[in-house]
Amino acid sequence: MQLSTVSELLSQKIATPEVEVKGWVRTFRANRFIALNDGSTLNNIQCVVDFENTDEAILKRITTGAAMHIKGELVESQGKGQKVEINVNSIEILGDSDPETFPIQPKKHSFEFLRENAHLRTRTNTFSAVMRLRSALSFAIHKYFNENGFYYMHAPIITGSDAEGAGEMFRVTNLDDKNPPLNDDGEVDYKEDFFGKETNLTVSGQLEAETYAMSLGKVYTFGPTFRAENSNTSRHLAEFWMIEPEVAFMDLAGNMDLAEDFMKSVISYVLENNHDDLEFLDKRLQDEDKTKPQAERSDMSLIEKLKFVTENNFKRVSYTEAIDILRNCKPNKKKKFKYIINEWGADLQSEHERFLVEKHFKCPVILFDYPANIKAFYMRLNEDGKTVRAMDILFPGIGEMVGGSQREERLEVLKEKMKALDIDEKELWWYLDLRKYGTAVHSGFGLGFERLVMFATGMSNIRDVIPFPRTPQNAEF
Amino acid sequence: MQLSTVSELLSQKIATPEVEVKGWVRTFRANRFIALNDGSTLNNIQCVVDFENTDEAILKRITTGAAMHIKGELVESQGKGQKVEINVNSIEILGDSDPETFPIQPKKHSFEFLRENAHLRTRTNTFSAVMRLRSALSFAIHKYFNENGFYYMHAPIITGSDAEGAGEMFRVTNLDDKNPPLNDDGEVDYKEDFFGKETNLTVSGQLEAETYAMSLGKVYTFGPTFRAENSNTSRHLAEFWMIEPEVAFMDLAGNMDLAEDFMKSVISYVLENNHDDLEFLDKRLQDEDKTKPQAERSDMSLIEKLKFVTENNFKRVSYTEAIDILRNCKPNKKKKFKYIINEWGADLQSEHERFLVEKHFKCPVILFDYPANIKAFYMRLNEDGKTVRAMDILFPGIGEMVGGSQREERLEVLKEKMKALDIDEKELWWYLDLRKYGTAVHSGFGLGFERLVMFATGMSNIRDVIPFPRTPQNAEF
Repeated sequence: MQLSTVSELLSQKIATPEVEVKGWVRTFRANRFIALNDGSTLNNIQCVVDFENTDEAILKRITTGAAMHIKGELVESQGKGQKVEINVNSIEILGDSDPETFPIQPKKHSFEFLRENAHLRTRTNTFSAVMRLRSALSFAIHKYFNENGFYYMHAPIITGSDAEGAGEMFRVTNLDDKNPPLNDDGEVDYKEDFFGKETNLTVSGQLEAETYAMSLGKVYTFGPTFRAENSNTSRHLAEFWMIEPEVAFMDLAGNMDLAEDFMKSVISYVLENNHDDLEFLDKRLQDEDKTKPQAERSDMSLIEKLKFVTENNFKRVSYTEAIDILRNCKPNKKKKFKYIINEWGADLQSEHERFLVEKHFKCPVILFDYPANIKAFYMRLNEDGKTVRAMDILFPGIGEMVGGSQREERLEVLKEKMKALDIDEKELWWYLDLRKYGTAVHSGFGLGFERLVMFATGMSNIRDVIPFPRTPQNAEF
Repeated sequence: MQLSTVSELLSQKIATPEVEVKGWVRTFRANRFIALNDGSTLNNIQCVVDFENTDEAILKRITTGAAMHIKGELVESQGKGQKVEINVNSIEILGDSDPETFPIQPKKHSFEFLRENAHLRTRTNTFSAVMRLRSALSFAIHKYFNENGFYYMHAPIITGSDAEGAGEMFRVTNLDDKNPPLNDDGEVDYKEDFFGKETNLTVSGQLEAETYAMSLGKVYTFGPTFRAENSNTSRHLAEFWMIEPEVAFMDLAGNMDLAEDFMKSVISYVLENNHDDLEFLDKRLQDEDKTKPQAERSDMSLIEKLKFVTENNFKRVSYTEAIDILRNCKPNKKKKFKYIINEWGADLQSEHERFLVEKHFKCPVILFDYPANIKAFYMRLNEDGKTVRAMDILFPGIGEMVGGSQREERLEVLKEKMKALDIDEKELWWYLDLRKYGTAVHSGFGLGFERLVMFATGMSNIRDVIPFPRTPQNAEF
């Protein structure tokens, strides 16, 4: 007899009625019904035990969390909630689970409690669904880029350049922690460190991805990035994953087309392939919503929000138009916004982004042509001399999902911008080389993977969408 | 007119003879023939310039490395080496490339020189082929696992535990580098560091992957790992990528089945999908071989080596049998091995592994049941009390490619092994929990991604198969 997964059993993709399955007990009811799960699906297979002919000692060991090897016959279920079930012929207990001490009991646990038990939390429906979706989204991303002629590149994690300025960095070192060697100036002598210079964890692989785009044409990164910001919020992690495509010969309009097509494709993939998990999370969110005051409830269910992205065209609006709309909108005039929009040049907050998406346009929005001084140095300066070819994609509920730009391809303009920001040309000699030798228009964007997983699962705390979150004061596991 | 890629043009997947393409000049011959490349394929499209009717100033700017926008008619080629070429109607120079200073000229550059110009080296045939293969192998890995019911999990990069003992680690810190805070004992006070404890870069995601296998069933990691070893060799990197699958309810035999099927599938994928790149690298290797003394040349070409893996069954041999074979083989008796095998318990070197694969069995080999004391603490102890259910997969030319094991699932045995090695139980409380609650047989393996890329590309220096290598004294770019 061959071992089947629960998923195979429930979809009845098996040849004989005699089946064999291994998994963990979720619940055991009435000394008779084991709900068994093996991670292959959200759903459990019901295993019906003939308790009158089963050793009492065995029955006592069928507890939540115990690992079992079950053999029996797959039959049509008499009960409701499942099509098939197993009439158990033999039970072997592979690993016990003491109900007095096993932390994951069949009851509602707080997410905070489950974070402290992150090594066990995927034994719950919610976290197994979230992590299956995380995996499916990852695959959808690789699949999309592969089908569209992109090459995956691994940007370096340890970096000797801190020029991007996207945030505080973590130092990577091998020097003596208490008495590091000092140089003649009395400063720490990084020449003696492992890499012969000061090194940090990367904040973005974009600049390196540009070097590959300018030879291989279409590339993307998908790797971990780091920020040493002491932000203890539900939206920040010190370690998170980013996706950064970069394409030669593509302008900002092409960048918008790519990002829209990409986001729709990836979300469609999980709508098609992860129905059970999404439905479960959708219901979870609706139940949670019912406990909130009316004003805080969301207008759309989880699946409605995903379809809002796949079924609507993304509205493209210039920053300048957006400022006009915001300045004149009701919540601004009635001072309902926390940050009132007074003039051109203001940086938009999540409340403004969500207003544009959810109330004004009622579709995902791409804002473009932002003021140069609120955006990064590498963005392509427009002919007006004050805006850059940047774009942000705004989604319902979450605000900014994607940030990208056409890159400054003109050597002299780039050098001037770097000078103004005090970025040393020597630090980025290789980045400037791309503008010296065969420069061309090129563009790309960045997507924080965990924000995408939050959006697709409806989870509201970013710590609940990554296996082992790294945050201030926490690097457990 | 729509922009086409060189790959589309060469495979003639275009509707009209009027075409438009953007790319970089590889060579410009006889004031007439531009070889244009855009990274979409190894091959160039030949663009034939009507030089008599082209501005002299333009012709002078058609130099190696320059970016071009070319329009013309796609016609059957008169010359040999290509089926089609473009009769150029219009040339626009997007970005010049000064032939006096552009480092990548159409001549043979040393790999060392190209490492110093790693931001430009994918503009050569060799490195573009290597990096396309690297990307294809990555995709093949994700595809294999996705099709076989595995979930991708992101193991943490920054880790607070250093218990695995796989090698020297890099410290990650945010404390003042010169004057770190000290505690009452006069040691650096990591309670004041970002994470409230000492943290390092991970050496392996296996232990965390086990937590997910014991709930989701089949999982794998594919992420960066780090070793702070001061090994300046062609086989070591400080930062490299690893693939680590982990499966619940799978024993060592299942682990071998999985690893063999996986390796064959991934290599078959590139044989099917990357023909041009492989053929180019195969020829490169043969040319390089001709410059070597007879004794150092390889027995097999690159593609033969790949087929050696896909077309042979992997021979499964116990460590004990292998020691018998090695002890009695000619090179051992004639003292041709650098390390003579005298007795059971010896650690095998690359020369022994290659002898078994290339000379003795003439097929990939899986060695299993290694002496416990040369393997890691988490490997499942056999009933003999002296060997563990470990396996190594040996490939031609390179030796060990995969290392894995069945994991010790018995709480008491695992605790004893940890005690013997002085590993603090408190450090790994969560790992021990897996043995307390619903433990079961489970197994997995690790594959160094760069070793796979070396094997599949025939490159002999590991620095040439990762975009921006990190090695002692080097973290450029």
